[in-house]
Amino acid sequence: RASLPHRSMMVTMSQNQSYWSSINADIEAHLKQAIPLRPPLQVFEPMHHLVFAAPQNPAPALCIAACELVGGHRDQAMAAASTLHLMHAASFTHQQLPLTDRPRPKSRPTIHHAYGPNIELLLGDGMIPLGFELLARSDDPAQNNSDRILRVTIEIARAIGSQGMVEGQYYELECPQSEGEELCDIGWIEQVCKKKEGELHACGAACGAILGGGSEAEIEKLRRFGLYVGTIQGMLHGAGKLEKGVMKVVEELRNLALKELEEFKGGKVEAISSFVNV
Amino acid sequence: RASLPHRSMMVTMSQNQSYWSSINADIEAHLKQAIPLRPPLQVFEPMHHLVFAAPQNPAPALCIAACELVGGHRDQAMAAASTLHLMHAASFTHQQLPLTDRPRPKSRPTIHHAYGPNIELLLGDGMIPLGFELLARSDDPAQNNSDRILRVTIEIARAIGSQGMVEGQYYELECPQSEGEELCDIGWIEQVCKKKEGELHACGAACGAILGGGSEAEIEKLRRFGLYVGTIQGMLHGAGKLEKGVMKVVEELRNLALKELEEFKGGKVEAISSFVNV
Repeated sequence: RASLPHRSMMVTMSQNQSYWSSINADIEAHLKQAIPLRPPLQVFEPMHHLVFAAPQNPAPALCIAACELVGGHRDQAMAAASTLHLMHAASFTHQQLPLTDRPRPKSRPTIHHAYGPNIELLLGDGMIPLGFELLARSDDPAQNNSDRILRVTIEIARAIGSQGMVEGQYYELECPQSEGEELCDIGWIEQVCKKKEGELHACGAACGAILGGGSEAEIEKLRRFGLYVGTIQGMLHGAGKLEKGVMKVVEELRNLALKELEEFKGGKVEAISSFVNV
Repeated sequence: RASLPHRSMMVTMSQNQSYWSSINADIEAHLKQAIPLRPPLQVFEPMHHLVFAAPQNPAPALCIAACELVGGHRDQAMAAASTLHLMHAASFTHQQLPLTDRPRPKSRPTIHHAYGPNIELLLGDGMIPLGFELLARSDDPAQNNSDRILRVTIEIARAIGSQGMVEGQYYELECPQSEGEELCDIGWIEQVCKKKEGELHACGAACGAILGGGSEAEIEKLRRFGLYVGTIQGMLHGAGKLEKGVMKVVEELRNLALKELEEFKGGKVEAISSFVNV
């Protein structure tokens, strides 16, 4: 019967869907508990709001999935995944700020500003250290994981900083964009997406593998997998989303991404593979 | 002879001066080496500029002085001190951003904007993770200091975040200020300075003591000493600088600060005491 493969693919997709949903629900629960509404409420209430108002980003879930793929337990990567969401939320918040010299890139969604720009600037500045605090606090003498936590701290600092997201945003500023017109070539757009979205996802996957006890080879494979997945994200939903020729590049990136998973074994391979279609 | 006490005080002051100068020179040298002009140059060149353009802040030097006071070696606190300068520079950079709803507080100096606001927002966002990266990289297996580094990471994250500097800046926004008029009472100003400048200095002193191997009692004494020193800084040079009644509060804070040093012994006590007069 011709409907069987289709049906089994639907089942697989829905299984993967529930895998992601369960990961995302766990990250959200962890964040809610990690950012309680504590004093000063004037600061924490809006921070809480902005952390959860930021659109979901696959990098935190990828961190958990990579940890589980190499045989680790979800809890080992939970703090790092939460930190990645905070970094993404901080960046998202700062990208919305109305600055006097800011053009509006196509990739920037229009959001409702619940608070003034001054407050949103400050809250973004508060989320970044909160992320590093959460991560450092996940140090657990019983697990003897200090070295892994410090390594992941360096990974995340680089991915969000001047050799990762900040660098990508910098490049994006240099590319004049206006609605309907195509002013940057597709290679340039891919470069922006690699830095802006790719590095955070590469970092997420590598950190998950580090925390889950993966080998150096596994860590590097998952880092490259994450880089492709994040670049696809940027091409489809970020700087590249209205560009011509995107789908061809995305297809190439999907193949490259899946190649990185070839040597992994076990039931989680299929689930993490589905990230190329997120 | 009546001139003797005066003369010996001058000698002491100049000795302390050279102590601070040598600390600050060491921090600057460490930062210059830690932030090389590496690719992408478009990002690193302006970041380099803004890191060193930020006015000097006593919190990093206090970190080194506290480390030496408890018997540690300067090198043990050098990365943390450099991180504190980066955090101060990031905050300083963001405080200069022209935002649409931003009043100009008296405490905010007018600076020349070498780069556009967009770039300055991004560079501030890049300096914070760079600071955490520097700190995490100072982890040294030979010293077995991972636990101290992680503890200091949490200290710095809190001091610069929503329970420290960010909270203070938040309160500052709530206090309407206009040139020549006094709209906030001195107690409120003291509270703002405690959060905005006090917490960073408290953190600096506590981190120096942690990294230098001080006892818990020494760490807490130095934390309180730093809190008073930082609040004095804010009262004299920050939010409080044009308020009436500041000098009386400053005098009280100086006495409280010096009380915290009473049980410390050795040649470095005098040098760190002089911080109350910075």
